[in-house]
Order: sequence, then structure tokens, then C-alpha cells
Amino acid sequence: MSNTRPLIAIDWGTSSLRGARLGASGQVLESREFPRGILTVPPGQFEAVFDELFGDWMQVPGALCLISGMAGSRQGWQEAPYCPCPAGFAELGQHLLWLKTGRIALVPGLSCLGSDALNTPDVMRGEEVQIFGALHLEGRDSATLVLPGTHSKWVQVQGGRVTQFQTFMTGEVFALMSQHSILGKTMDLQGAFDETVFLQGVDTIQQNQQRGSVLHHLFAVRTLGLFERLSAAQLPSYLSGLLIGEELRHQTAATHTEPVILIGSEALTLRYTLALQHLRIPCQSRGAEATWAGLFALASAC
Amino acid sequence: MSNTRPLIAIDWGTSSLRGARLGASGQVLESREFPRGILTVPPGQFEAVFDELFGDWMQVPGALCLISGMAGSRQGWQEAPYCPCPAGFAELGQHLLWLKTGRIALVPGLSCLGSDALNTPDVMRGEEVQIFGALHLEGRDSATLVLPGTHSKWVQVQGGRVTQFQTFMTGEVFALMSQHSILGKTMDLQGAFDETVFLQGVDTIQQNQQRGSVLHHLFAVRTLGLFERLSAAQLPSYLSGLLIGEELRHQTAATHTEPVILIGSEALTLRYTLALQHLRIPCQSRGAEATWAGLFALASAC
Repeated sequence: MSNTRPLIAIDWGTSSLRGARLGASGQVLESREFPRGILTVPPGQFEAVFDELFGDWMQVPGALCLISGMAGSRQGWQEAPYCPCPAGFAELGQHLLWLKTGRIALVPGLSCLGSDALNTPDVMRGEEVQIFGALHLEGRDSATLVLPGTHSKWVQVQGGRVTQFQTFMTGEVFALMSQHSILGKTMDLQGAFDETVFLQGVDTIQQNQQRGSVLHHLFAVRTLGLFERLSAAQLPSYLSGLLIGEELRHQTAATHTEPVILIGSEALTLRYTLALQHLRIPCQSRGAEATWAGLFALASAC
Repeated sequence: MSNTRPLIAIDWGTSSLRGARLGASGQVLESREFPRGILTVPPGQFEAVFDELFGDWMQVPGALCLISGMAGSRQGWQEAPYCPCPAGFAELGQHLLWLKTGRIALVPGLSCLGSDALNTPDVMRGEEVQIFGALHLEGRDSATLVLPGTHSKWVQVQGGRVTQFQTFMTGEVFALMSQHSILGKTMDLQGAFDETVFLQGVDTIQQNQQRGSVLHHLFAVRTLGLFERLSAAQLPSYLSGLLIGEELRHQTAATHTEPVILIGSEALTLRYTLALQHLRIPCQSRGAEATWAGLFALASAC
């Protein structure tokens, strides 16, 4: 795969903005990162912020820019409507939203309908590019992928198309419980990650499937501290284990014959790897390179 | 049952302070409520606050005062250590913590050990009095009781003794999700309670026991709003249904042949009544009278 036009790949999220200038075979020539997520950009100022931070890269003749993430949301630069699943690489390419310059395009997010009674919709923006990038890098066209984070995504891909996905509010609930709930009062958030305690949290959820609930088990973060069974520094690891364990509650080795692909920061994919290995579910990890690979492949197909 | 000494019954919680002057047969002669929960009282000032607010009542010759709730916690007036379960009325009475005057006693809370692998401890303070009060009023000595709230309690009583209980962080998670999470951004918290939408939330949890998780279903509060399937005013009812549904996840009509006793404010017990009836689980409700009945019975046994 190669790209005749120089590509500027941008991942413009809610709280951060990352960009990379890619070479003809997709290699990263230069990258930049700014705390300029869409929440920091006043309406109507997206083009100005983009020009200020990446304008020099765009001066290269023929340069093309693809932007994924929340920049394509209603609160972003311009709304690129969700592409309904099942959707593959081709659908994403067809629904790129070209801005007036014709050299910059917003990548649409994906939507799907749940299999529950209400057919509850689900959405993603930005993850779709990482998914296709990781599949390209792994040389696979079917997989279960997990993108941990504030809103963790579990994604099914079959024959190169996303067929179904589910969002879990794991990261946001962890942040709320540790910063704003009664649990936070006894936790030492600077405590080093404790693998044993983390896995105890995972086990608590796994072993109590037929009774209790995560709403109950969360309270143990308070009482295990109160009764001095865990130290203040260990409590965040236990809370993390409970919540990631709850996200993994229905996952078993029997339903994952192929490795699950994890995409995310090293700190987070490490925790998911530990939990998945504990459940004997094979997995492998990818980081930021998945984003650049996905945008590069998309540009090559334009 | 009667009480020869005049009783001042006090429920001193985290955020509020309620008191009642009871007659010889337990009837409420006068009651007072103040926003003076223990969090508002500086260390060492509990006696002064008590004297200021209830000193006149204590001037009646022979008056006795029992105080339940967080006033007996480490952050309260003085610590009344937890009474380990199984514990009944007799154990509570034996472990009253008499303050130096000999006319005021703090009621201890209860603790129990969970049946999970870690034997995770659980605790309550104040609810134990409501439990025994409600049982007295109902004339029962065995029951499942539910005390909804910030930290909802599910309690098993057999032969007049609390054998086991579980705390669920339902109310606190509702507050955090509606006030601090991304879900709050699209919710109208002033929206009137919508019974149909609330029960849809309960059903979503009940019907998806074998997949998903409340961490996933919570995200629907965002997407059902985004796709205009529910109005901003309906979203709090759906969130409430999801969380109360999750608390009730393992409850079935088959395991509740006797009515569950709900104790709490009318607004909360109404929601639990709706959800329990929806699951064909019989229930009945009690309010603040359970607290006064429990403290009165305890004083009578002193």
C-alpha cells in the first residue's frame, strides 16, 4: 500500500489533539500533540486552530488531511453523520465529509442498533479508524477488538466490516467513584498499581455472577479500607479490578478462540491484558500506531 | 409495650438531624428536623449542638435519649463499635454506648461478613433501628427488608435477628451520573418522573442478564437522547430504572413468598414498589415512623 499524496493524519478528540505527517509508505515523519480537544475550541474557530497548529504541514503541495474523532461531531468542526453498521472501510471512505478546501476531510463515526428489546443505539467517533488500522497491521479481517478508555468499546468485525459494538462507561465510572464518591475519601489515588489486588477485584465480579451486583461490590472499596483489609494505596487497584471485571463479566475463553485485539495506552491495555489472561482469553495490544495506520489506509483508498 | 421514662428519640445522620419527643406509648408528641448532619458539626461540638437543639426536651425529669445513625461513627459524637451479625434487639440494647451523663446513649451500627471469597465486610448505622421498628409495627420477626437511599440496604432478618445484609451504592451512583458524568449534559433533572420509561430501564437490565452490563446500559441514557428516542425530561427516569433494576437484578417472585418491607421516603419507596410489583414481588412500605418505633422499643427494653 502506498499513498502518492503527502498525508496529514489528525486525531481530534474531546480533550486532546494529535497529528502526524506520514511518509509515502505510511511511516510517521513527524508528530505533534496539543491539549486542544474540541471542548477548548469556540464554535467557528476550528479552521483557525487547525491552521495555527498544522498550517505549515499543509503547505506541502498536494498534501491531504484526514481528521478522525470528535471534530466530526455536532460540537466539532462540522457534523459528519454516523455511518450505520455493518460498515467497513469502503463505507467510511464513501462518507468522508470534505470541507470547503477539498483537501481536508472529516471521517464519520459509526452507529449501530443493539440487540436488546429497545434496539438501543450505540455510537463511536475516532475508534473506527483505530479498528481498521489495527486490523491492517495484524493482517486480519475478523476479530473482537477492545478499546479501553473513558468510554470503552467492544467491537465485532467480520469480513472487514464492523457488525456490532457496545460502549461501557468503565473509565468514566472509575473517575467519578474515585474523585466524587464516598469511596474517594479513603483511597490514595497516588498508590502504585497492585496487580494482585486488581485481580481480586476481577475475581469478586466473576465469582459472584449469580448474586450481588457491581453496585454492591463497589461498597467493598469502603469497607475493606475501614476494616484495614486493604491499604488506602491498594484501594484504587481493587476499584479498577471491580470495574474492568464487570466490563468482562460475560467474556469466557470458550467464546474467544482468536486473540482479542486491545487498542489503547500502555497503562490501560496492561490492565486489560492482565484481566483477560486471568480469564485465559488470548489477546494482543496496539497503541497510537493503529490511528495513523487507519488514516493512511483510508487516504490510500480515496 | 410502654416506657416509664420520657424518651427523646434522635436520628443523627450524615446530612440531617431529626428528633422526636415520644409519649408513654410511643406516640410522637413533638418532632424537629435540622440540616445539622454530623458533617456540619466540628469535632468536640456534638454535645453543644445537642444541648442547643434538644436541651429543653432533656429538662423533663427522668428523660432518656437514644441516638441512632452516624453520630455513633468515628466521625461522630463518639464511636459506638459495630455489633457483628447475627444480631437482634437484645444485642443492640447490650451494646448501647452510654455517654457520661448516663441519660444519653448512642445506638451501635451492625456489621456482617459477606459470603464471597474475601468475606467482604458490610456495615450499617441507623438502619438497624428502622429495621427493628418496622418489624415491631408489622408484627413480624422474619423478613427481607429494603432501605433505599444513597447507600441502599438489603437485609435478611430471621427469628428477630439480622443474619445478613448487603449495601448497594444505587443512590450515590445515580447522583454522580446525573450531576458529574457526560449523561448529565443531556438530561433535564427537573423532568417529572415517568413511570413507563422507568420500567423500561428496569426491563433493560432484567432482559439482558446474559450479556451486557449496567456499565454498558448506562451509555444508552446518552444515545437514546442523542437519537431523540427519549426526551431530556425522560432520561432521569430511565437512568433511575436502570440502576434500581440493577439493584434488583437477582430478585425473583419465587424467592419472595412473604412481602418485602420497604423503609424510606415516599418518593423512593414508590419507585421500588413499582419495580418490585413489575417483577411480581409483594411489598409494603414504612416511613419515618419506623425510626421512632425502633428507638421506643429499644428504650423500653433498657
